[in-house]
Amino acid sequence: MIDMIKIAIMGFGTVGSGVYEILEKNRELINRKLGEDIEVKTILGRRLFSENDISKKIVKEFEKIEEDPEIELVVETMGGTTPAYEYIKRSLLAKKHVVTANKAVVAAHGTELLKIAHECGVNFLFEASVGGGIPIIRGLFSSLAGENIKEISGILNGTTNYILTKMDQEGSEFEDALGAAQEYGYAEREPEADVEGYDTCRKVAILASIATGLEVAYEDIYTEGITKVDKIDFEYAQKMGTSIKLFGGMFIDDGKLYSYVCPMIISSSDPLYMVKSVYNAVMIEGHTLGKTMFYGSGAGKYPTASAVVADVLSVFKKNNGFKPYWSEERAYVEDMDKTSHRYFVRFQGRNEEDIAHCERAFGKSRSVYLEGKDEFAILTGYMREKDFKAVLEGTKGMIKFIRARI
Amino acid sequence: MIDMIKIAIMGFGTVGSGVYEILEKNRELINRKLGEDIEVKTILGRRLFSENDISKKIVKEFEKIEEDPEIELVVETMGGTTPAYEYIKRSLLAKKHVVTANKAVVAAHGTELLKIAHECGVNFLFEASVGGGIPIIRGLFSSLAGENIKEISGILNGTTNYILTKMDQEGSEFEDALGAAQEYGYAEREPEADVEGYDTCRKVAILASIATGLEVAYEDIYTEGITKVDKIDFEYAQKMGTSIKLFGGMFIDDGKLYSYVCPMIISSSDPLYMVKSVYNAVMIEGHTLGKTMFYGSGAGKYPTASAVVADVLSVFKKNNGFKPYWSEERAYVEDMDKTSHRYFVRFQGRNEEDIAHCERAFGKSRSVYLEGKDEFAILTGYMREKDFKAVLEGTKGMIKFIRARI
Repeated sequence: MIDMIKIAIMGFGTVGSGVYEILEKNRELINRKLGEDIEVKTILGRRLFSENDISKKIVKEFEKIEEDPEIELVVETMGGTTPAYEYIKRSLLAKKHVVTANKAVVAAHGTELLKIAHECGVNFLFEASVGGGIPIIRGLFSSLAGENIKEISGILNGTTNYILTKMDQEGSEFEDALGAAQEYGYAEREPEADVEGYDTCRKVAILASIATGLEVAYEDIYTEGITKVDKIDFEYAQKMGTSIKLFGGMFIDDGKLYSYVCPMIISSSDPLYMVKSVYNAVMIEGHTLGKTMFYGSGAGKYPTASAVVADVLSVFKKNNGFKPYWSEERAYVEDMDKTSHRYFVRFQGRNEEDIAHCERAFGKSRSVYLEGKDEFAILTGYMREKDFKAVLEGTKGMIKFIRARI
Repeated sequence: MIDMIKIAIMGFGTVGSGVYEILEKNRELINRKLGEDIEVKTILGRRLFSENDISKKIVKEFEKIEEDPEIELVVETMGGTTPAYEYIKRSLLAKKHVVTANKAVVAAHGTELLKIAHECGVNFLFEASVGGGIPIIRGLFSSLAGENIKEISGILNGTTNYILTKMDQEGSEFEDALGAAQEYGYAEREPEADVEGYDTCRKVAILASIATGLEVAYEDIYTEGITKVDKIDFEYAQKMGTSIKLFGGMFIDDGKLYSYVCPMIISSSDPLYMVKSVYNAVMIEGHTLGKTMFYGSGAGKYPTASAVVADVLSVFKKNNGFKPYWSEERAYVEDMDKTSHRYFVRFQGRNEEDIAHCERAFGKSRSVYLEGKDEFAILTGYMREKDFKAVLEGTKGMIKFIRARI
């Protein structure tokens, strides 16, 4: 007789139902790989479907999963932290493996949940919480095998990348591009989590924690969204042969950790330049490995569900060594003022004296003008952010600045 | 007392010495990860270095490694198949794990060596044999966890990509770009293995074998190099907003396996378009995962050595499940005539009747002209290769054709 592994799914929305479908559809393949069948025994969900195989599995009470000794693993695809955090914790304490796609829970409670999983001798995996279908956590984990990570930088949020791509390609204003993203279902009605960079920030916290082996608290990461990026910024960007994207990343310099989320000007020769629309990509740089990039669908039902299924299978695969982990020690994230970038700064007016003053003040800088606009822009050389801000104080008429990685 | 794992390195050239350096430099990190130290006890090499720590380890006879019961793992970085194949086989039979960066051996003898490793209860790993520092075999292995692979396509050879990038950016002829590549050490003096596509073909065979679980023999893969691509092809490509790159790949359609290596015209909106110079990238498409791309340094001392070290560590990591494998059953690779592509075809002359005839004959096609050239080109719609060739027979003055993925 074939062994049968029984699991539960909590939350039967887009991702949860995708997990169910993939497990059903690939039953034979999975059996071939594991030598065992996986059966979804119980589904925690609110709605009752029309009478079918799925509806019989639906329960409304978490206790029916928690107290069922047959259930070895729980997939959490409810989203949000309440009640997902509590249910994950109780599942782990009941010695059930947990696989989640929930970046909010992992970023806020990952340290505690990893510790509980470790103590209870079960796995807590969350590949789908960062980069959807891109095996970025596995990639990072394996890149870490022989060396220390120097830098991680990526485009980690499909919604904002869709909006910025649309602004770039169609010359739209932010509000219009956001409206289109909402219309097509790429953005929520309440889009703050995406457009203010909070979603990216949580993903960066997870990656930085794995990379450093320490807890990187998302509250410690400098986070700036894309709501202030406008159509004129893109006109300048295009004039310079560049684009603007929302970056999240971390780097280690001289043993110190820096981490940030902010819009950045990116050169067309940068491999991340071509990451358009809802796609995501992450660049990992190791001391010896050089730069490696992972690219793919950052969201979507099947890519995300597929990452969840890969985690589920890896729990049951014999001799599986995939266990991303970080300790309870909290990493110290350096202040953003200590980082260095190039800066693109827009100033009001076209006064020649002001322009000359800016060019002198910022040293190795370049001025950019747009036809018919009563303003000018300066692209500085690499400067420490603190020094840049000090120079900026001695100028007048600043409209805004955007950091640049060109 | 700390446990000490003893290993040997066969071949102490660029990659082999890189492996040694990385193991030395990251000793502390590796000990932290494994709980054990790794010591390179013996090095198989011809040259004797000036008296130092390394020179004491060098031996000239393979038997000193084969017969040393202390050596648990052998790194093979000699290149070529003789004597590498024999030494790997004998190492495995002596129950030593083997890690290699040698695509020639893996493509020609992988099936047999995997079988021997399996029977002897040791590991045979070869991450560095494809894509240098890019964890592409790991990526493929983990992508395979929950689903079947639909397509793999990639730029897998840094030398040819450097040459084609140079031809594109500088308008060079093939011979001049090859000369520059040789001058900078990116191409061998005898460049056939790279420019004729043989190197890419071997890498494709390895990836296709892992993806299908069957032996895909490299001799069965249609292979065409880049020696016939010229500067005028790039002029046309640029006029169409495209470029030309050497692709290697496989896809499964209706249960049938197709595999190829050939230059292809690629659109600027394709994520693989931005893979320039010596970089490599591989796109993997799964049924549910969607498209995932892995990008990085396809060659180079440290990226390649780093991939070797990652394999070495994974052998000694507790509960390691990373064991790419394929069976002895040989896959049937369908004939290239059965594939479908778009085709870019150049014809002599500018005779209006000939052009009109071609446009009619190829159906959904587009004509392209270059200023001042006594020739024209047709870009066809998607056609089965057999049908395309049949139509081509009814035309005259064909200069060449290049397949297109646009």
